[in-house]
Amino acid sequence: MKSVFYSRFFILLPWVLIVIIMIDVDTKRSTSVGHTAQSYLSRLGNGQRHERPALPGKNRTAALPVIYAITPTYNRAVQKAELTRLCNTFRQVPQFHWIVVEDANSKSELVARFLARCGVPYTHLNVFTPRRFKRIGMPRATEQRNTALGWLRQRRFLKDSGIVFFADDDNTYSLELFEEMRSTRRVAVWPVGLVGGRRYERPLVEKGKVVGWYTGWRADRPFAIDMAGFAVNLQVILSNPRAVFKRRGAKPGMQESDFLKQITKVEDLEPKANNCTKVLVWHTRTEKVNLGNEPKLHQDSIHIEV
Amino acid sequence: MKSVFYSRFFILLPWVLIVIIMIDVDTKRSTSVGHTAQSYLSRLGNGQRHERPALPGKNRTAALPVIYAITPTYNRAVQKAELTRLCNTFRQVPQFHWIVVEDANSKSELVARFLARCGVPYTHLNVFTPRRFKRIGMPRATEQRNTALGWLRQRRFLKDSGIVFFADDDNTYSLELFEEMRSTRRVAVWPVGLVGGRRYERPLVEKGKVVGWYTGWRADRPFAIDMAGFAVNLQVILSNPRAVFKRRGAKPGMQESDFLKQITKVEDLEPKANNCTKVLVWHTRTEKVNLGNEPKLHQDSIHIEV
Repeated sequence: MKSVFYSRFFILLPWVLIVIIMIDVDTKRSTSVGHTAQSYLSRLGNGQRHERPALPGKNRTAALPVIYAITPTYNRAVQKAELTRLCNTFRQVPQFHWIVVEDANSKSELVARFLARCGVPYTHLNVFTPRRFKRIGMPRATEQRNTALGWLRQRRFLKDSGIVFFADDDNTYSLELFEEMRSTRRVAVWPVGLVGGRRYERPLVEKGKVVGWYTGWRADRPFAIDMAGFAVNLQVILSNPRAVFKRRGAKPGMQESDFLKQITKVEDLEPKANNCTKVLVWHTRTEKVNLGNEPKLHQDSIHIEV
Repeated sequence: MKSVFYSRFFILLPWVLIVIIMIDVDTKRSTSVGHTAQSYLSRLGNGQRHERPALPGKNRTAALPVIYAITPTYNRAVQKAELTRLCNTFRQVPQFHWIVVEDANSKSELVARFLARCGVPYTHLNVFTPRRFKRIGMPRATEQRNTALGWLRQRRFLKDSGIVFFADDDNTYSLELFEEMRSTRRVAVWPVGLVGGRRYERPLVEKGKVVGWYTGWRADRPFAIDMAGFAVNLQVILSNPRAVFKRRGAKPGMQESDFLKQITKVEDLEPKANNCTKVLVWHTRTEKVNLGNEPKLHQDSIHIEV
């Protein structure tokens, strides 16, 4: 009798342990901030840098479309600081691919080193803006954004699922923004904070459709929206191969409209962020740095990257 | 014979499974970027907010001293954007406690809501700066920093291990900075980027000791260092209960020196960041926002927090 009891006990004990362990592991993975944290873990587990999408079935994030964030950048005192803030945010976004395009004739060592260490899957490109386009009143970063679009059209295909977003290097991004844009079917829009001389600009939404724009500046623009205020499904980028940002006839503040009218209509826009009532991205601007005390003589004995 | 085989098989099988599961779980936890990712997971797993240190033995981060980051903040257009960037960075730092002190007569709903959602263990305090101290040429955030120090002296004890750091809300912080300051025994120092009219300021180090300052501004300061350039062990804060930031006789730019000379000497400073040769924090400043187009009439139909 005793021996039967013991044998049953020892047969059941490990199964009970297995169940307990599985419940414990599962609880730890699913508590907390949803897929952001999970995928942070899973991405780190899969290796810091990869272009390939994660193995299917490996984790829940594998099914998510990749967010391609296009960031034009240029050499200046605050460049590394700005990229550091972006990296600190982007490295928490699952299925993310950062396309950084330098305004330069060649890739800088600073940006190359930075990206290699940042821990976000990335592509590093460069294209120099001709001097004649570098005047006040001219739209900026046109060449850089188009170069990134060109890269996507060459390297991604109709079978790839993705979302394209233009992420300038001085804006402020909440993590929630990326959750919102992830479900973009064609073109999604949302409010942007601290832009156009107002606390925010936003698309006005009625019955789930964009019907106008709350803006303090040129309300006559077909799409009165900032570059940080929309995302485009990769399929739309690929199936409209001629849609680019234009130099000819383009005015500052009209780049977004010029681009969007090539790929969508106002009535087809998909409002995100609770029908465009939440500000999840801010058009912050960093002050130009005063380097007035930089020494001409008596320089530091070593070179330090800033 | 067959039955003996089967019974042994079924007794052994679950134990083998248990071993496999344990190895799998352990591997997933320990791969990747060392303690940052692990603790990010473990902290999320343990619940988003907690004041208590993690259970000992639960993970390797439990042994780390807590970093107490003191952030004075005040109501302005870019406040939530700035706090968002900080939160996105701080939530990746293990064993971190954010002490946010508002310059206000009462805690604002915006900051309270923000902190509750941010996912970083925090304490929310407030103290109003008297109007007579709010003039140009007067040091800023003195009352807020002292209130945070007071909180630490009331709520933390000699048995608690911690590091105290003054993290202004517009600076830019690399994650590496927090790894560096974690080992502060008494007072640690490192370079700060984009400050004092230079690309960077830094302590000059010889044979592991600070022997002077590379600075473009008032090199005669006893500690020619920015608020973002040092950390103090909690024990030093607790065992010098009268060390505070001073109003009386204090000049802007002298706050750091006035404070540090109460608790340490230059020769006792611990140089971090590879003997003060790496910039891991930047004194960035965000532009004041132009709200010139904010409407007096025709306001938005809903209220949106920015």
